[in-house]
Amino acid sequence: MIIIGELINTSRKVAHEAVAKHDSGAIQELAVRQEQAGANYIDVNAGTFVEREVEFLPWLVQTVQAVVDLPLCLDSPNPIALEKAIAAHKGVPMINSISLEHDRLHALLPLVSGHPCKLVALCMQRTSMPNTAQERIEAADELISILTAEAGMKLEDIYIDPLVQPVAVDVSMGKAVLDAIGGIKTKYPLVNTVCGLSNVSFGLPERKRINRMFLALAMHSGLSAAILDPTDMQLTAAMKTAAMLIGQDEYCSEFIEAYEKGEFI
Amino acid sequence: MIIIGELINTSRKVAHEAVAKHDSGAIQELAVRQEQAGANYIDVNAGTFVEREVEFLPWLVQTVQAVVDLPLCLDSPNPIALEKAIAAHKGVPMINSISLEHDRLHALLPLVSGHPCKLVALCMQRTSMPNTAQERIEAADELISILTAEAGMKLEDIYIDPLVQPVAVDVSMGKAVLDAIGGIKTKYPLVNTVCGLSNVSFGLPERKRINRMFLALAMHSGLSAAILDPTDMQLTAAMKTAAMLIGQDEYCSEFIEAYEKGEFI
Repeated sequence: MIIIGELINTSRKVAHEAVAKHDSGAIQELAVRQEQAGANYIDVNAGTFVEREVEFLPWLVQTVQAVVDLPLCLDSPNPIALEKAIAAHKGVPMINSISLEHDRLHALLPLVSGHPCKLVALCMQRTSMPNTAQERIEAADELISILTAEAGMKLEDIYIDPLVQPVAVDVSMGKAVLDAIGGIKTKYPLVNTVCGLSNVSFGLPERKRINRMFLALAMHSGLSAAILDPTDMQLTAAMKTAAMLIGQDEYCSEFIEAYEKGEFI
Repeated sequence: MIIIGELINTSRKVAHEAVAKHDSGAIQELAVRQEQAGANYIDVNAGTFVEREVEFLPWLVQTVQAVVDLPLCLDSPNPIALEKAIAAHKGVPMINSISLEHDRLHALLPLVSGHPCKLVALCMQRTSMPNTAQERIEAADELISILTAEAGMKLEDIYIDPLVQPVAVDVSMGKAVLDAIGGIKTKYPLVNTVCGLSNVSFGLPERKRINRMFLALAMHSGLSAAILDPTDMQLTAAMKTAAMLIGQDEYCSEFIEAYEKGEFI
């Protein structure tokens, strides 16, 4: 599993205040904690500062990469903010995200064509959210076709996000995402899938319990990456237990190491 | 999910002592607790009393059915004990189990041909335990063929047990069972699958954590029944959370009811 640490997102109060004050220390502490907890990418998102995202996102990139030796996940719908964040980034970033929405697609295609990157592609339809697994797979078909043909991207650099929606609104939404992940993996073994977890539990009690179970089930469907809090030990315990049970932990060594470190609280 | 309550098994000390003393009250208390916790079948197993199983198994049937209005899962490799337990049973029992082993198969076929029942069929090969998913599916093919053709059984009365083995011995064993469950469900949509959980975690720490995650993953693969302790609230919480996320809990009502009853401890 590829873990994208989600804590540096200004929709979280701590991150919002740190960015507002340009408090490098607070941002760097969040970055280091996630690196130590096993993150493979650090997500940076300054989306709540709509007007100043273009300035704040590259600042976040420099601030984080000053202390951690990881690639970042540059998280914005704004092509100009992404362009500046890419320019500030050392190494190969993950860009989050593109979709089939016309303006977003055509603004981002030149960016991702011109720069080595990993790219998160959302299974939005042109004008609406997907409902079924099939709608998600069709959006993935079209995204993969455009990204490989028009932007020259390699399949393994594409991360399809099936867009998790709340089961409280429609209980078929969980299975639709799980089936989409499985369907995309079968059709495109080299393409990655990625998702956030928390939408699935929106409107329900016991949200963390639901989110960590959904991660495990999505891993079983073939999920290759997730945007999550790597410092949440109950979540990482579920992830490590599931990884072992689906055969991704040779000799059960990561599971046993986590146990010995006292991570199963 | 069809839940088969596993507590009345003489390999457990409480049940062993109760059977040894013919303590009806203790056995009945175990039965009632499992019924109240939502069991659909109560498993009865007197296997540790090898010599006296023929006498003790029908006693268990009568003792349990005196207080609970549920069918039982008659759990023995001994055809004579099973025959006597079937005779003592009211309603349609589940018989646990048959396999391709020559003597067991030919002793049990006449029994299941002559009596309406559900039947657990183990994916043993003729002389050895299965390793891969494919070996399990091949054993299932053969069992299903024999049971329908020679015993006139309906597909929906067959419960294939893929035989869970420890991931600590070989980490591919978890995925082999999960893939076998999925493969059998795809090939025979009407046939049920069933398994016990605890073997998967043999030799590892945090066994209950592993077992409940395995149940959730197996449900996602299509498992229709499980032999488990229905009074284990962490296990049933995992089961209800997974059921919701795979779309088996309309309006999330069972999940929310469990929450409101304080079952998520």
